[in-house]
Amino acid sequence: MLPELTDLDHFRSLLAQAPAADPAAQAAAAERNGQLTKPPGALARLEDLAIWYGGWRGTGRPSIEKPQVIIFAGNHGVTAQGVSAFPAEVTAQMVINFEHGGAAINQLAKLAGARMDVQALDLDRPTGDFTKGVAMEDADLLAALQAGWGLVDPNADLLVVGEMGIGNTTPAAALACVLFGGEAADWTGRGTGVDDAGLANKTRVVAEGVALHQGAIKDGVDALGCLGGREIAAMAGAIAAARMLRIPVILDGFICCAAAACLAQSSDGALDHCVAGHQSAEGAHPVLLAKLGKEPLLSLGLRLGEGSGAALAIQILKGAVACHSGMATFAEAGVTDG
Amino acid sequence: MLPELTDLDHFRSLLAQAPAADPAAQAAAAERNGQLTKPPGALARLEDLAIWYGGWRGTGRPSIEKPQVIIFAGNHGVTAQGVSAFPAEVTAQMVINFEHGGAAINQLAKLAGARMDVQALDLDRPTGDFTKGVAMEDADLLAALQAGWGLVDPNADLLVVGEMGIGNTTPAAALACVLFGGEAADWTGRGTGVDDAGLANKTRVVAEGVALHQGAIKDGVDALGCLGGREIAAMAGAIAAARMLRIPVILDGFICCAAAACLAQSSDGALDHCVAGHQSAEGAHPVLLAKLGKEPLLSLGLRLGEGSGAALAIQILKGAVACHSGMATFAEAGVTDG
Repeated sequence: MLPELTDLDHFRSLLAQAPAADPAAQAAAAERNGQLTKPPGALARLEDLAIWYGGWRGTGRPSIEKPQVIIFAGNHGVTAQGVSAFPAEVTAQMVINFEHGGAAINQLAKLAGARMDVQALDLDRPTGDFTKGVAMEDADLLAALQAGWGLVDPNADLLVVGEMGIGNTTPAAALACVLFGGEAADWTGRGTGVDDAGLANKTRVVAEGVALHQGAIKDGVDALGCLGGREIAAMAGAIAAARMLRIPVILDGFICCAAAACLAQSSDGALDHCVAGHQSAEGAHPVLLAKLGKEPLLSLGLRLGEGSGAALAIQILKGAVACHSGMATFAEAGVTDG
Repeated sequence: MLPELTDLDHFRSLLAQAPAADPAAQAAAAERNGQLTKPPGALARLEDLAIWYGGWRGTGRPSIEKPQVIIFAGNHGVTAQGVSAFPAEVTAQMVINFEHGGAAINQLAKLAGARMDVQALDLDRPTGDFTKGVAMEDADLLAALQAGWGLVDPNADLLVVGEMGIGNTTPAAALACVLFGGEAADWTGRGTGVDDAGLANKTRVVAEGVALHQGAIKDGVDALGCLGGREIAAMAGAIAAARMLRIPVILDGFICCAAAACLAQSSDGALDHCVAGHQSAEGAHPVLLAKLGKEPLLSLGLRLGEGSGAALAIQILKGAVACHSGMATFAEAGVTDG
């Protein structure tokens, strides 16, 4: 079991002490990979994935049996600035849809054989409008981090975190902008469908938020409090918890990656246990992935959130691990090796 | 049940009469797609896939229950020209590996819940060396087409065809070159791993084969006989049979696409029931996909053959169909629609 988070510096110190992959297991996985009945390197990215996964799971012949998908939902004070095409009540409606099994992520989690948890975070108490003050005070941020931190199943062997939160591409863009620099317009996109005027407004809102808070932000944890959202902080908490438990994570789209970026900008290598599940259609996602040094597994134009792209990518990682651990070696199969 | 193929013109006439997708089912699928609880277009390529699949299966709310993977194996006289890094006996060894469940495709087919069939085609009787004469006489070609044609399960609802055949990127390159033009070097690549000298030799072999036969080739069926191989013709036969049965097909890499191209160059729209599963690392595959007008679902650098990339892509199509048919509509879920 993981310790409960006592304060934000406790979270920072846990991030700094996070465990690494097991080099012996990774070497054993690489050695096995070299003996499998295929031309060297013919499974390409699948080979890299299986070796990486084995390293984190501490075995040269891993399997994926218990993936977990957690969806966090939050509401955002910044929607008062008119940044979304959908009304905020859709967040709560979609939570009910998740609970009833009717959303895209339900179908994709089921297909991947994943347990799915849904956590709504104070939907009737939106975060502060970050153009006027902080999104979350320290106690609120700590509670949101802990919500994610505490929901990761220690017995899971793979984690996907997803989100629902009307307006949340706006805080995600503000986080990316404050963490990586550049203009607000470099990081804003159409989200679930704002028009040109909506996009210009969103860019203004991000620029105002960044200008107001950037002086107070020294790391990703600070950024989460000033500009984030509860579901974004909870995703960050869950990704960090998975690291402590050596559970590999598949990152989803722009918002998930913005949450992950807050960890990466708080502690070096904090995302070494993560792969990028997909590249979404949100314009700044490829740039954000590049900043994180992550190459996406899929690029199908998805822009839904909910962890949908990452859940689909579970199948790719499962395929990689199935080949790695299930294939015969040249010696076992009596096949001539090159 | 499909009729047995009586001669090559019979095959050509069946190709010309192939059925189309059901426009009413496709329209019903598109209408359902518009009602699902997601922003319009947010599932992007997954939405297109589900609508396309529904059209071919004749239902607005399809499911994928019985995928079939068929692996064809053949040997090639052109290996006498030294075009492969592996000895020809590996083809038969790998067939045994497929039968014993030890290859990559076995793991990927199992993960996708697919039935897998393996068909070795006269491995002790390689095709003719196409630099000296035709690869297959008409009777041999007909038998190979029929082998594929007859192996498709009429109750399958999705088909992947894959291949094993030491040296078979060389006939695949020759087919692509004769069907689409350009220089031999435009279509040759390193296959499972030839060096620079090997690649130059392979290019020479392709150029010689194309020069020798192109005058006699009027369509893709002719090309298969002159420059193809038994496993390549069998894949073409299976893809054509799937069309007759309205079973959608996921195409694999360069060799599978060369087989498919022979159908496309024999009858317009012959691949309308096919999607490209992936883009392989074989250099000319992206060009071949573009000639076929197909956008790959995956691009992970695979270059194994065996139907491996296509089998992995079954999961993407399954995800698309699961979302389409399993999600709640806005009305069902009580979610505010935009």
